[in-house]
Amino acid sequence: MDYQLLLKDLMKEVKQIAPSGEVAGYIPELKKVDADKFGAYLTAMDTGTGYGVGDYKERFSLQSISKVLSLTLAFSLEGDQLWKRVGIEPSGSSFNSLVQLEYEKGIPRNPFINAGAIVIADILISNLKEKTKETFLDFVKKISDNPSIGYNQKMIASEKIAGYRNAALVNFMRSFGNIRNDIQEVIDFYYHICSIEMTCAELSNTFLLFANHGKLISTGEEIISMSKSKRINAVMQTCGFYDEAGEFSFRVGLPGKSGIGGGIVAIHPGKYSIAVWSPRLNPKGNSFYGVELLERLTTKLGSSIF
Amino acid sequence: MDYQLLLKDLMKEVKQIAPSGEVAGYIPELKKVDADKFGAYLTAMDTGTGYGVGDYKERFSLQSISKVLSLTLAFSLEGDQLWKRVGIEPSGSSFNSLVQLEYEKGIPRNPFINAGAIVIADILISNLKEKTKETFLDFVKKISDNPSIGYNQKMIASEKIAGYRNAALVNFMRSFGNIRNDIQEVIDFYYHICSIEMTCAELSNTFLLFANHGKLISTGEEIISMSKSKRINAVMQTCGFYDEAGEFSFRVGLPGKSGIGGGIVAIHPGKYSIAVWSPRLNPKGNSFYGVELLERLTTKLGSSIF
Amino acid sequence: MDYQLLLKDLMKEVKQIAPSGEVAGYIPELKKVDADKFGAYLTAMDTGTGYGVGDYKERFSLQSISKVLSLTLAFSLEGDQLWKRVGIEPSGSSFNSLVQLEYEKGIPRNPFINAGAIVIADILISNLKEKTKETFLDFVKKISDNPSIGYNQKMIASEKIAGYRNAALVNFMRSFGNIRNDIQEVIDFYYHICSIEMTCAELSNTFLLFANHGKLISTGEEIISMSKSKRINAVMQTCGFYDEAGEFSFRVGLPGKSGIGGGIVAIHPGKYSIAVWSPRLNPKGNSFYGVELLERLTTKLGSSIF
Amino acid sequence: MDYQLLLKDLMKEVKQIAPSGEVAGYIPELKKVDADKFGAYLTAMDTGTGYGVGDYKERFSLQSISKVLSLTLAFSLEGDQLWKRVGIEPSGSSFNSLVQLEYEKGIPRNPFINAGAIVIADILISNLKEKTKETFLDFVKKISDNPSIGYNQKMIASEKIAGYRNAALVNFMRSFGNIRNDIQEVIDFYYHICSIEMTCAELSNTFLLFANHGKLISTGEEIISMSKSKRINAVMQTCGFYDEAGEFSFRVGLPGKSGIGGGIVAIHPGKYSIAVWSPRLNPKGNSFYGVELLERLTTKLGSSIF
Repeated sequence: MDYQLLLKDLMKEVKQIAPSGEVAGYIPELKKVDADKFGAYLTAMDTGTGYGVGDYKERFSLQSISKVLSLTLAFSLEGDQLWKRVGIEPSGSSFNSLVQLEYEKGIPRNPFINAGAIVIADILISNLKEKTKETFLDFVKKISDNPSIGYNQKMIASEKIAGYRNAALVNFMRSFGNIRNDIQEVIDFYYHICSIEMTCAELSNTFLLFANHGKLISTGEEIISMSKSKRINAVMQTCGFYDEAGEFSFRVGLPGKSGIGGGIVAIHPGKYSIAVWSPRLNPKGNSFYGVELLERLTTKLGSSIF
Repeated sequence: MDYQLLLKDLMKEVKQIAPSGEVAGYIPELKKVDADKFGAYLTAMDTGTGYGVGDYKERFSLQSISKVLSLTLAFSLEGDQLWKRVGIEPSGSSFNSLVQLEYEKGIPRNPFINAGAIVIADILISNLKEKTKETFLDFVKKISDNPSIGYNQKMIASEKIAGYRNAALVNFMRSFGNIRNDIQEVIDFYYHICSIEMTCAELSNTFLLFANHGKLISTGEEIISMSKSKRINAVMQTCGFYDEAGEFSFRVGLPGKSGIGGGIVAIHPGKYSIAVWSPRLNPKGNSFYGVELLERLTTKLGSSIF
Repeated sequence: MDYQLLLKDLMKEVKQIAPSGEVAGYIPELKKVDADKFGAYLTAMDTGTGYGVGDYKERFSLQSISKVLSLTLAFSLEGDQLWKRVGIEPSGSSFNSLVQLEYEKGIPRNPFINAGAIVIADILISNLKEKTKETFLDFVKKISDNPSIGYNQKMIASEKIAGYRNAALVNFMRSFGNIRNDIQEVIDFYYHICSIEMTCAELSNTFLLFANHGKLISTGEEIISMSKSKRINAVMQTCGFYDEAGEFSFRVGLPGKSGIGGGIVAIHPGKYSIAVWSPRLNPKGNSFYGVELLERLTTKLGSSIF
Repeated sequence: MDYQLLLKDLMKEVKQIAPSGEVAGYIPELKKVDADKFGAYLTAMDTGTGYGVGDYKERFSLQSISKVLSLTLAFSLEGDQLWKRVGIEPSGSSFNSLVQLEYEKGIPRNPFINAGAIVIADILISNLKEKTKETFLDFVKKISDNPSIGYNQKMIASEKIAGYRNAALVNFMRSFGNIRNDIQEVIDFYYHICSIEMTCAELSNTFLLFANHGKLISTGEEIISMSKSKRINAVMQTCGFYDEAGEFSFRVGLPGKSGIGGGIVAIHPGKYSIAVWSPRLNPKGNSFYGVELLERLTTKLGSSIF
C-alpha cells in the first residue's frame, strides 16, 4: 500500500469540501491558530515508516488528546483501583457537563470528559507529589521518543483565564470527596497536561504504543501491559469523541481521541497509527476535516477494526 | 487452538463464581426459565467448525439480541436515511428511559434501546406493509440457514401484559411524529421481533454474518455490504449493552449484543462468533456468567479487537 | 368599589397592548375558537353580585381549570390518602413532561399537571365505578348551581386524536403501578373532565366556593371542609400555572388556575372570585390578556393575598 | 386571642411528637448547636405586642432566612431589572443543585436557592462597591430596629471550609457571565449574609416589615413599596422552602422562609409575623418542629392566607 499517495489523494479530496466550522473560541490562545492548517501523518507498524502530508511538521495544542497519556500513566501506577473514582461509560452529554456528575455523586462518567481528566490529574498528584509535572513530562518524552516535548506556559495562562467551568467541576467533585489534593494544584496540573504540543508526526509516533499493545516499537520495552493497552483502546473507542463517540465509531471504526485544538489521533491495533490536524471544529467539537479524512481512509483501506 | 477444550475450561472456571443476579422478572413468560442454564457455542470462521458446551442446544428467547437482525434488514432496505429517525450514540441511561427521548424530541439515541428498536419496527412496516412479519422471519431463517426458527406466540402475549412502558414509549414518539404506522401494529411487530428463539449454536452461526463482513459463509451471498456490516458492528460495540457498553468494551473488547433472556452474542471480525446463554442478569441487565465467560475468553485468546 | 367600571377600564387598557400569542394549536377543536374573544366576570362575596364585561356570556372549554373540580371531589372522597399517589410540589417543568415522572417513579408532582390529573381521574373511577362520569358532572352542576353544564363530546373526540402524549403518560404511570383502572377508561374520563365548558360568569360563580372556604354561598352547604378548601387554594397558588406559577404569584398574587382554552380563574379568599377568558396564550401556555388584566386588577385594588 | 397561651399549648403539643431529624451537619460551626433548643415568638401587628415561648431569647444562625433581607435591599436598589438575572419560579430540586443551572444557562430559578442568593450578593456588590458589607448590615439593623445585630466571623470561616459546592456554583455561573465581580469577594459576602444571627423575637420583629406592606411599624417609614413587599411575600410563598415549598404552603398556608440553622419565619400580611427555631431538620432541610408548630398555629387560628 502506497500510504504516501493515499494520504495525498485523501487530503486533496477532503479539501474540496467547503470548509465548515470554527476554530475553538473559548481559550484566547487557541483562537490565534490559522483555521486553514491541515496536516496528516500515518506510521505503519510493520516497517516503522511514517508518511506525512500538509502541515504535519507543525506543532499544535494536544488539549484533550493528552488525556490518553495521563490516563496511561495513572493506570500503570494505580491499576484497576482507578476505576473506583472514574467510570468507563460514554457520557451521553457534552464534555464539560455538570449534570451527570450531580446524578452520579461526583464520579465522572469516563476519564476523557473534563471532570474525569481532572480526577486523573488528582490521582497522579497523590502518587507523584511534588514531582508530578516533571514525571508526567518525562513519561511523555519517553513514549514519544522525543526530548523536545514541553508544556506551553502561554496556553496554561490562557486556559486559566477561561477556566470557570473547570473550576466549577473541580469544586463540585471536591464537595463529593472525589478530589483529594489542593484544588489550585489539581487545576494547574490539569492545564499543564492539556498544554502539551506535538506535530502530527510526533503524535502519530507516540500513539503507536497503543497499536503495539503497550510496547515501544523502538526498543520493545513494555510501558503498559497488553491487557491495559487494549483497555485504553476500548475506552478511546467508546469515549474518545465526547458525545460523538458513536458517530466516529460508525464512520471511521477505529479507537481514537480528539482535542479541541483540532487534532485527532486514531490507531488500528497491529497495523498503524495516524494523526490528523485541522482546527475547524464540527458542532460536536471534533475536527471537521479530520473526521472526513479518517472516514475516507478506513473506507479506502477497508481497514476499520470491525 | 483447541476451542472445545478452552470453552470447557472457561465454563468450569466461571461456574466456580457464586451465581449472582436474578432471571429477568418483568415478563411472566421469561421468569419461568431455569436460572441455572448455562451454554456457550463458538463458530470459527476459517474452518466453519462450531464448538459447544453446556446447554448450547437449548433454545432461549433472544429478546434484544433480535434488534440487530431487524436493524440489519431495515438498514439494507432504507440505507443511511434510517439515521434521520434514530441516532447512533450510546444512551447513557437505561434501556427503557423516556428522559432522553423528551430532551431529544422523539429521536431515540440508538437502534438498540427499546425506543430505537420500536422505530426500526415502524420503518420495516412502512417498507413491507402486510408482509412485514413474514418477510422478517424469512430473513432470519435465511441468515441463520435454519427454517425452523419462529416467533413464540406465548412470549408475545406475555410481553404485552407487561408492556406499559413500551406503550408509553411508542405513544410518546408518536406525539413527536417519529412513529408513522398504527401504534398497535408497531408494538405487535416489535414483540414478534423480540420473541424469536435460538440455541447458542444457532445464534452463533447466525451472527457469523457480521464476522464475515456481511456475506453468508455457506454460500458467499452478500446479505449486506461490507461497509454496512462494519457499521452495524460499530453500533454493537458502542450501544450493544445498554448503559454497560463501555464496561463490556473494556472487559471483553468485542462488538456484541445482549438480551434480557440471558443471551449474549459477540463477534471477532474475520475470526469467530460466539454465543453464550445464562439467565441470571447483573444489575445492568446483562448475563452475569455470560460476561464473565467472554472476558476470560478474550483474555485467554489475546483476541479482542483492540 | 365600582367593580363594573373597574373591569371596563381594565379591559380597555389591556386591549391597547398589541395582541400576542396564538390559540392553543394541538387540539383541532380548540383551534377553531376566535382568537380575539375577551371576557371577564367578577363575583363579590359580600353582596353576591357579579360584574361582567366583554364576552363573559360565552362558553369556552375549561380544559385544565376543571382539574381543580376533579381534585375537589377526589379530595373529599379520599382525604389525605390522596397525597400518597400525587405530590403537591410545583413541577419546574412543562405540563406534560415525562422526565420528573421517571425520576420520581410514577408519582406526578402535583394534581394539576396532566399526569397528576390523570391519577385523580383514576382515583375517582376507583371510588365511583360505573357512575363516575355522571357523579362528577352532578358535582359540577351542584357547585356551579347550574344544571345546564355538560361534557362536550366533540372536544373529547378531538382530544383523543391528539392525545399521544397523554397516552404515553398513562401507560408510563401504569408501569409504575400508579394507575389502577383500565387505561382507556381512565383516559376517556380524563378527557371528559377537560371538556367541560362554562362562561366567565359561570366559572366565577363556581369558584366562589373556594373564596368561601368550602361552602356554597347560596345555601351555606359545606361541600368540603374549610381546611381542605384552604389546601386546594394553596395548591392553586403554587401549582396552578404550569411552570409560570411563581410568575403569576409574583404579578397577580392570588391563587388561581389556567387552562389552554384561554381561561383563568382566580380567587381572593373572603372577598371575590374572578374569571377571565382570552384564547391567545403566552409562551408558557397561559392566557396573555388574562394575566395582564388580573395583574392590573390586583394592583388597582391593592388586593393580592400578600 | 391569647397568643401567649396558644404558643405555650402548641409548643407542649409539638414536643410530644418524638424528635426527628438531625442538626445540619455540613457546616462544622452549625453542628455544635444543641439539637433540643426550641423557641417561638409571634408579633401581632394591631397592638405591636410580642409573645414568646421556650428559647426565644437565644440567637441562632439565620442562614437562608437572610436571603430575604439581601433580596429586599437588592430589589429596592435595582427594581425589576433584577429579574433578568434570577428567576422567580420554584426550583423543583434541592437548594444547591447545578442541574437546572446548566439547562437554564446560568440563570438561577429563584433568589432563595444558593445560586440565586449568590447572584443577589453579586448585584449588591455591583451597587455598593467597597461599602457592601457595612451597608447591608446597616440595612438589617435598621429594619430590625436593633443595632446589636452583626456578622458571625466564626460561622463565616466555618462555611468557607465546607463551601466547595458553593464555589462550584459561583464559578459555574461566572462561566455563563451571570457573576460580574471577583469570585472570592462574592462568596465572602454571601457567607457574611448567611452568618447573621437573631433570636426568635428579633427575627419576628424584623419580618413584621413584610406583614406591614413594606413599612416599619415603629416609624411608618417606607422601606420598600407596597407592591415590592407583596412581591417578596409571593416569592417566599412559592420558593421559601426549597423543594418543600408546596408542602409548606399546603400545610401552613403562609409566606415564609426557612434556614438550615433550624429557623423559620412566616407572616400573615396585615396580621402578624412569627419566628420559630428548632435545629432538627426534616429530610427536606426545614425545621421539623418548626413546621409542626406552624401548621397547628394556622389550623387553630383558622388564619392562613387562603
